[in-house]
Amino acid sequence: MNTNNSVGIVATQSFTFADDAPMQLDSGETLGPITLAYETYGTLNPDRTNAILILHALSGHAHCAGYHSSDEKTLGWWDDCIGPGKAFDTNKFFVICSNVLGGCQGSTGPGSINPKTGKEYGLNFPVITVGDMVRAQARLLDHLGIAKLLAIAGGSMGGMQVLEWCARYPERVCAALPLATTARHSPMLIAFSEVGRQAIYADPNWNRGDYYDGTRPNAGLALARMIGHITYLSETSMHDKFGRRLEERERFGFDFETEFAIESYLRYKGERFTERFDANSYLYITKAMDYFDLCNGHRNLAAAFANSAKIVYLVVSFTSDWLYPTYHSKELVSALTAVGADVSYLNIKSSWGHDAFLLEVETMTGLVSNFLDRIVNEFGVK
Amino acid sequence: MNTNNSVGIVATQSFTFADDAPMQLDSGETLGPITLAYETYGTLNPDRTNAILILHALSGHAHCAGYHSSDEKTLGWWDDCIGPGKAFDTNKFFVICSNVLGGCQGSTGPGSINPKTGKEYGLNFPVITVGDMVRAQARLLDHLGIAKLLAIAGGSMGGMQVLEWCARYPERVCAALPLATTARHSPMLIAFSEVGRQAIYADPNWNRGDYYDGTRPNAGLALARMIGHITYLSETSMHDKFGRRLEERERFGFDFETEFAIESYLRYKGERFTERFDANSYLYITKAMDYFDLCNGHRNLAAAFANSAKIVYLVVSFTSDWLYPTYHSKELVSALTAVGADVSYLNIKSSWGHDAFLLEVETMTGLVSNFLDRIVNEFGVK
Repeated sequence: MNTNNSVGIVATQSFTFADDAPMQLDSGETLGPITLAYETYGTLNPDRTNAILILHALSGHAHCAGYHSSDEKTLGWWDDCIGPGKAFDTNKFFVICSNVLGGCQGSTGPGSINPKTGKEYGLNFPVITVGDMVRAQARLLDHLGIAKLLAIAGGSMGGMQVLEWCARYPERVCAALPLATTARHSPMLIAFSEVGRQAIYADPNWNRGDYYDGTRPNAGLALARMIGHITYLSETSMHDKFGRRLEERERFGFDFETEFAIESYLRYKGERFTERFDANSYLYITKAMDYFDLCNGHRNLAAAFANSAKIVYLVVSFTSDWLYPTYHSKELVSALTAVGADVSYLNIKSSWGHDAFLLEVETMTGLVSNFLDRIVNEFGVK
Repeated sequence: MNTNNSVGIVATQSFTFADDAPMQLDSGETLGPITLAYETYGTLNPDRTNAILILHALSGHAHCAGYHSSDEKTLGWWDDCIGPGKAFDTNKFFVICSNVLGGCQGSTGPGSINPKTGKEYGLNFPVITVGDMVRAQARLLDHLGIAKLLAIAGGSMGGMQVLEWCARYPERVCAALPLATTARHSPMLIAFSEVGRQAIYADPNWNRGDYYDGTRPNAGLALARMIGHITYLSETSMHDKFGRRLEERERFGFDFETEFAIESYLRYKGERFTERFDANSYLYITKAMDYFDLCNGHRNLAAAFANSAKIVYLVVSFTSDWLYPTYHSKELVSALTAVGADVSYLNIKSSWGHDAFLLEVETMTGLVSNFLDRIVNEFGVK
């Protein structure tokens, strides 16, 4: 659990990177110009060898650590692990995090203005892939003058990007930390994605994605988020956190008002999500995840990593994560060892379900710090 | 898996049982007159000692075995296990199954006519509990002249009714078979229930439950069912059944049409469900499940079974059932043994998830047949 109560660092600054050159997408379409919102923490060393790229999950964004200003109230989403003296120690490393392509928190996505029409893309935005997200990030690194990353790290969809980086740009990565993730999106993950999308489609305000001038499909988006939230927890963590406790009442109301604590938690999370997220981005990003399968076009998973054997890996799974079960990580480890890669793997005992990669701070801090220390030695970072 | 390809018996007949006396509900409200739709299979012996009550799950109904007529196409929902020579052998037993109170397949529910207004109850239907369902069934048995049941059996919500029967009417039950169930609905189950209900509330056609003269909230109901269906499967069974197979196309379409087989399966199941189920019933029945907690008003679970120790139990759980995990059954077994009951318990290895209680036919047949043989001997059924 979170044992770190420090205020966290102040993020030095937010940036945007705009690239006018159109980008070729996996679908065959082109997209451009593109913008990526990103943040950096710590200092790039003169050799440019201490950069770590952090990759966010479905609902994440570039703001992964600290506050932007002293009156800001929301810490970065992975502040527990990123900052001075933390797992990703910003006294040593130059940490970068960008909002994914297709996102809605500063990067080009379906809510951005389509230069051809002067209005929001909506469903005219091309369907993108995790590979497209990663290609856009590679351009950002070119722009920053970083030829090779010391490490790349991320959980869930962030882990998919980590693996895509390893497969596409093995020469640009020293070490990779795919956490609570999979090399191929499972049918259960697709099923939950699709139900979330259906919830958005069913909201009349969605209007086939054309809602930016009107009322937003918040009911559908909140519902999609509620479904997601259940899957990020575990049966045990729900028992521990909520049990069958009633919210603000002592006995059953025999009506359809919110009664159980778990219900009000989900409703609250769903509603809050609509304040910061765009329903169309939810569609595009879940679709990108559904398409994610590193085996695509390869004989098997090991073949996908044929050129990635020189990267050093730390693979982490969590025992109670039923959404990205342990055996997915084990398959990944097996494929990586088959090509002769240096792989450390830990299946962390945790009751927190999929969210564990964000919550098991103490274990993660020890594990990641040690691993990065080794990488620093191995790759001679000054 | 289903290895039984017999056509199944023809259900002798469907009945309805109407009771004009108003029923006192757990909420304090009264409801009446009430009707229960039920079916029977096999013959009641002269001693009236061979009756078995089958209790259905959330979406079930009274038609649990056979066809009603030779041109009917849909077999009863548990035909694999109910019929001549099957687990619940209708050559030996008189099997009864009724649609639950609050249901929409013949029994009184929110879609029934409210005698006070002459139109459908809608949300004026009182919130009911699993206890209310069971009390209505007890009246049906009075009507049938059956003082004591040889056995009661059901999976999922059917199992909750089994346990409620044991706690409320221990003198009326010889043997009980709670399958893939729990003695208290968990926060995860409540969470999935609530998200399903939210999907219905969010459908503008729901109109606060007043839709019987207009368009039905089929989009919301289909969505609720899709969510449910994911939870009835397991990660492994989805892999085995669907994998990442595409439906009717060879490559990604890079659009938002249905692409993966798992997606079309869920959409199909969702749509089909709206043809036979009422959205308001979905709300009422899930709410009854959420309220289900046999510990309510008791010191602990064992205390709830203090008077039920003479019943003989067969408790069954399934290893891959993450919705009603094994440890719930183990808690139940522990409470029952604490009061000195005769309990057999099996945790069946299966990859089918929660649906396993309907799909592991061979194992269930052997297990249930043997158990019932023993019960027949023990209770001297002629």
